[in-house]
Amino acid sequence: MSTHTPDIKRLFEPRAVAVIGASLDPNKIGYKIVQNIVTNGYVGKVFPINPKGGEILGLRVYPSVHDIPDEIDVALVVVPAKAVFQTVQECAAHGVKFVPIISSGFSEVGNLEEERKIVAYAREHGMRVLGPNIFGLYSVTPSLNASFGPRDIPKGNVAIVTQSGALGVAMIGKAAAESMGLSAIISVGNKADIDEADLLEYLVPHRETRVILMYIEGVKNGARLVQVLKRASKEKPVIVIKAGRSRRGAIAAASHTGSLAGATEVFDAIMRQCGVLRASSIQEAFNWCKFLAISVLPQGAETVIITNGGGIGVIATDACETYSVELYDDLQILEKIFAPLTPEFGSTKNPIDLTGQATAEHYNRALEAARHSETIHAVLALYCETALFDVASFEPMIEGNFHAFQEAGKPVVFSALGGEKVEQLTEMLRRRGVPIFADVTEAVACLGALYTHYRYRSQPEELSQTLEIDTKAIERVLEAARREHRAFLLAHEAQQLLRIAHIPVPKSAIARTLDEAVRSADEIGYPVVLKVVSRDILHKSDVGGVALDLGNPQEVADAYGAILHNCRAYKPNAVIDGIEVSQQVASGMQIIIGARRDPSFGPILMVGLGGIYVEVMKDVSFRALPIGRQDAIDMLKELKSYPLLLGVRGEEKRDIDMVIDVLLRVGSLLLASEQISDIEINPLIVYEHGRGSVAVDARVLLA
Amino acid sequence: MSTHTPDIKRLFEPRAVAVIGASLDPNKIGYKIVQNIVTNGYVGKVFPINPKGGEILGLRVYPSVHDIPDEIDVALVVVPAKAVFQTVQECAAHGVKFVPIISSGFSEVGNLEEERKIVAYAREHGMRVLGPNIFGLYSVTPSLNASFGPRDIPKGNVAIVTQSGALGVAMIGKAAAESMGLSAIISVGNKADIDEADLLEYLVPHRETRVILMYIEGVKNGARLVQVLKRASKEKPVIVIKAGRSRRGAIAAASHTGSLAGATEVFDAIMRQCGVLRASSIQEAFNWCKFLAISVLPQGAETVIITNGGGIGVIATDACETYSVELYDDLQILEKIFAPLTPEFGSTKNPIDLTGQATAEHYNRALEAARHSETIHAVLALYCETALFDVASFEPMIEGNFHAFQEAGKPVVFSALGGEKVEQLTEMLRRRGVPIFADVTEAVACLGALYTHYRYRSQPEELSQTLEIDTKAIERVLEAARREHRAFLLAHEAQQLLRIAHIPVPKSAIARTLDEAVRSADEIGYPVVLKVVSRDILHKSDVGGVALDLGNPQEVADAYGAILHNCRAYKPNAVIDGIEVSQQVASGMQIIIGARRDPSFGPILMVGLGGIYVEVMKDVSFRALPIGRQDAIDMLKELKSYPLLLGVRGEEKRDIDMVIDVLLRVGSLLLASEQISDIEINPLIVYEHGRGSVAVDARVLLA
Repeated sequence: MSTHTPDIKRLFEPRAVAVIGASLDPNKIGYKIVQNIVTNGYVGKVFPINPKGGEILGLRVYPSVHDIPDEIDVALVVVPAKAVFQTVQECAAHGVKFVPIISSGFSEVGNLEEERKIVAYAREHGMRVLGPNIFGLYSVTPSLNASFGPRDIPKGNVAIVTQSGALGVAMIGKAAAESMGLSAIISVGNKADIDEADLLEYLVPHRETRVILMYIEGVKNGARLVQVLKRASKEKPVIVIKAGRSRRGAIAAASHTGSLAGATEVFDAIMRQCGVLRASSIQEAFNWCKFLAISVLPQGAETVIITNGGGIGVIATDACETYSVELYDDLQILEKIFAPLTPEFGSTKNPIDLTGQATAEHYNRALEAARHSETIHAVLALYCETALFDVASFEPMIEGNFHAFQEAGKPVVFSALGGEKVEQLTEMLRRRGVPIFADVTEAVACLGALYTHYRYRSQPEELSQTLEIDTKAIERVLEAARREHRAFLLAHEAQQLLRIAHIPVPKSAIARTLDEAVRSADEIGYPVVLKVVSRDILHKSDVGGVALDLGNPQEVADAYGAILHNCRAYKPNAVIDGIEVSQQVASGMQIIIGARRDPSFGPILMVGLGGIYVEVMKDVSFRALPIGRQDAIDMLKELKSYPLLLGVRGEEKRDIDMVIDVLLRVGSLLLASEQISDIEINPLIVYEHGRGSVAVDARVLLA
Repeated sequence: MSTHTPDIKRLFEPRAVAVIGASLDPNKIGYKIVQNIVTNGYVGKVFPINPKGGEILGLRVYPSVHDIPDEIDVALVVVPAKAVFQTVQECAAHGVKFVPIISSGFSEVGNLEEERKIVAYAREHGMRVLGPNIFGLYSVTPSLNASFGPRDIPKGNVAIVTQSGALGVAMIGKAAAESMGLSAIISVGNKADIDEADLLEYLVPHRETRVILMYIEGVKNGARLVQVLKRASKEKPVIVIKAGRSRRGAIAAASHTGSLAGATEVFDAIMRQCGVLRASSIQEAFNWCKFLAISVLPQGAETVIITNGGGIGVIATDACETYSVELYDDLQILEKIFAPLTPEFGSTKNPIDLTGQATAEHYNRALEAARHSETIHAVLALYCETALFDVASFEPMIEGNFHAFQEAGKPVVFSALGGEKVEQLTEMLRRRGVPIFADVTEAVACLGALYTHYRYRSQPEELSQTLEIDTKAIERVLEAARREHRAFLLAHEAQQLLRIAHIPVPKSAIARTLDEAVRSADEIGYPVVLKVVSRDILHKSDVGGVALDLGNPQEVADAYGAILHNCRAYKPNAVIDGIEVSQQVASGMQIIIGARRDPSFGPILMVGLGGIYVEVMKDVSFRALPIGRQDAIDMLKELKSYPLLLGVRGEEKRDIDMVIDVLLRVGSLLLASEQISDIEINPLIVYEHGRGSVAVDARVLLA
């Protein structure tokens, strides 16, 4: 027994595999898995296990895992749910490293207790659990098909991680039908232990894997997933299909794999932050996988569209904007390159229109010119069927150019719209790995996915800026709240926390007597605000516990008396800790900044323009923490209301640097103490450029 | 010669057709068209025309249109651009009704002059022009294929109108490959005369046409198109692919068919107003056409998803939200219907999960139950391939259920994800007209299109409310501007215009002396605002021509002097018509309302929340005029900032009825005079519910 965590490589490349619950009945899953392992030519040893013993497909069946003479890396569990725990105990005793639990009947049907017990036991004994509620796994390196899915899995470079088993099995079929080879497909089911992040640890450095596709319904340990995804997307494209995005979809997902879908906006923002490519349908995901697994990366952004029809060129141009593909627009250079190759009535503007008179030879010459041009980095070649179409010339033209472009290190995508003959050609070329689509929008979307990945890779690696914060000082502030069993900080405590993080707050002091109040007001400078400090009075302004715009000592004195009177009238027994005297801040632009621990993604940061913009327009942006300076800038730029910060209608630019600084500090503050669960500054008043900002009000909740 | 406009029916159902420029050379378009007409079995008479005479495909070739003994409804023109005008003259002389001009070389290459000349001549002589720059037309009723596109066009119920010829030709091929039958396909090219609206006049009542698909790059006479589309969408689904949506796409479209793409937001809003279905790709448009041409209309909104995989069910649920398909959620009734048919571990919540154990028989029973239930109006049946799949049972199950649902008057769509066998089945069923898709998102999108159409049809017909306005009074106001050759109204004139339309404006008067100013201020009530009235001073506040918040006669007197002084200092020669004294309006919510003549769509109306919301958040909505009350309400509801009108943060609801009233009045005002090109009220101050609104400032431009 060991509490050492096994290397995830042994899950994908086990030296020996056991199937616990192996069956002689060909209709049973316990037979199917053994059969798939054997027929797929797995390179390691296979041990079927069943108390009845006997032989399956020529393999000796062992009565129990104890009877196996070898060390077992992976023991697939196919016994009924109620027998799983005992099986896991036996595996642990035998030193098994990974137990993929095929069986269902756990958290997805509400049986969370049993699932937790199994995982806890496994982890205590140095063993890891895949699933439960899965179809198994396929891994190309050891030729292992340990699943009850289809027997024939095409070998290739796409790895699939799926939270839905049924979908995974069907995707294997679809992959075969579309000639999309797989390097791995693995079902994570209820994700009771092993999750996507664990699997990525293997798949990211895995040489045979060029693209990773994940079907996700919910995320549990998102903080780690974010870290792993950020690194992964620098290495290879990661495509995610997220289900449970709608309110009803989330409910359906919860009843399916027992996972919380989480807020869609947060998920979307964080996936973008991680450089993940988001596919909106299964077909789109497959298109991207196939293309990204084969295409070279571009050397730059300048894309040219070559077409024989103006209409299809316009549709492609629109799609380029939708999918963020940049079109080359140096008209002089374009004319120089393409004028000799373009017929009368054609166009050398991008799209290059070869007109309806274009033959395969016209395309050949235009593509060759684009391939040789140093200023063109990628090409979209579109074709509308005309009477001049013939398979005999278009087939070699398209295939030849594809390979020539690949060799030249330039991405190219084709689209051909037409009848039966065109469709057959397209189908045939697709099977041979040529990126060609009947629908032009799909072709552009593929190039868009490649460019999204390319841009993320090309970004300089940004170091996250977690600022040094005096954690002992924080501890002292939290201590008081803990002592009083409060799950929130009082206003002055929250302010104190912000001061520790060097976030500017209004000057203030707590007065316990009238004299102290007037003295503090004199020190701070008029006008001042008075506010009661009491944990017993929550809505302070509603009960007359706040007084604004006090311009002199007399007004302060009057307000002091009135506040005490009002509060005592409202709640005679209220414990009043004092009256806070603070600087009345000048008006400015209102920003809201929040940091909290998301149930899916852990620490996240939010920013929005204050008031109405957040409440009505929902104009906010999110990031997973920690972030760097550029992330903070990007967060602000994502806001639709960002121009307000830059200054519109002749207003001066706001102190954006200061907002960025506060964003980084609020993020660092949340990370500085596990005990803080929620920080919200609302509003942060932001002044003109160079004049800073001030956090007027802050709410801090404790874990 | 007649100036009577011929019935559009004669374009689609001509009794005799001439092909001017018919050729003996099989490689020429002039041969191809004759060949297509002949081989397609056109029921009318065909007259090839070529000065050389002779015979083509057994038909006598006439030297000129004059030599034809019969009346000609349609004369297709295939001669070079420079010979077209003369040909059109000859056609007119012979009483031809329609001249589809196949030839290119007109406005699409900048030769607008010649195109206009041709159309003007044709219209003067009671003849209409289709094109130029087109591939021709196909019309099922007379079996007429007068195009140079593919020879074999599958007969059916989808009519296509396309602005791009090349795309149209390729779409014919694709229609054949997808077994999508056409009732017509017609190329409008440069739309120099006949446009979509003209063609819809025929296609909407046309019995064989069940769905209309239009590829549009730009709209010219949009006002009429709106009227026709509104009616059309009540009769049958109209699907539009709009190209030239992006900035670059619009440029590409302009150089393609010489048409302006127009503002995307306006186009989108108006198409929604007309009940048009917007497809985002060619493939999507084809999917919808095929489905809508065959499917029955639903009797209600309650949709049920039946699936064998949770994951695919969640994806479908999300897609239902995206495509506005409502999911039935009476859990008790669902359980009653489906519990007896759902295995253990399945779900009777919607999606109904039959689990991976489901066979064709399980589906059969669940579908039958859904079909018999009166509370279920439509079904999405999804399938993920499992080991239990076999073509022999699934093929009849799917096809049988489709036909049973059709007979029961309930829409059903299928989706099947899996390998080669599943794909073959899907392909085979598609060819037989069964709505089944490999991708679940495409299946949901089809049902969404059906429901969008269904909802539009089900809306009560709304009468547009164009209010009676005293046009003579308007005329008097505009007269002054015309006399002075101004293209805009002065502020007090604009205000006068609003008064005529009964739009509330601040009380005001023009003072020409100090005494008059003070007297007016007394009458209006303090505080008042003073503003210089002068066509020579545009930015009045910048030069000190405005004074606000004047509380008594003395302040009015001081301000009067200061304004005159400032304006004379700024521009000594400025003609000053007087000083406007007006009520200073109380603050409230700011709304912007605009009405203008859009170059594409004619009179349109716009509304948004004022200031920042319009400028930065671009939160505005549009409608083509005239509109009804419900349209005005919908315009406001489309605004993201609409909750502000309803009242947030404890604020009172605003006087929304008054905003609706002003919207209707501004729309009516624009329609009341052709001479007004642009009206903008900014701001309209809106008070609490019941307290009305006031148009503080208005800008009016003249045509």
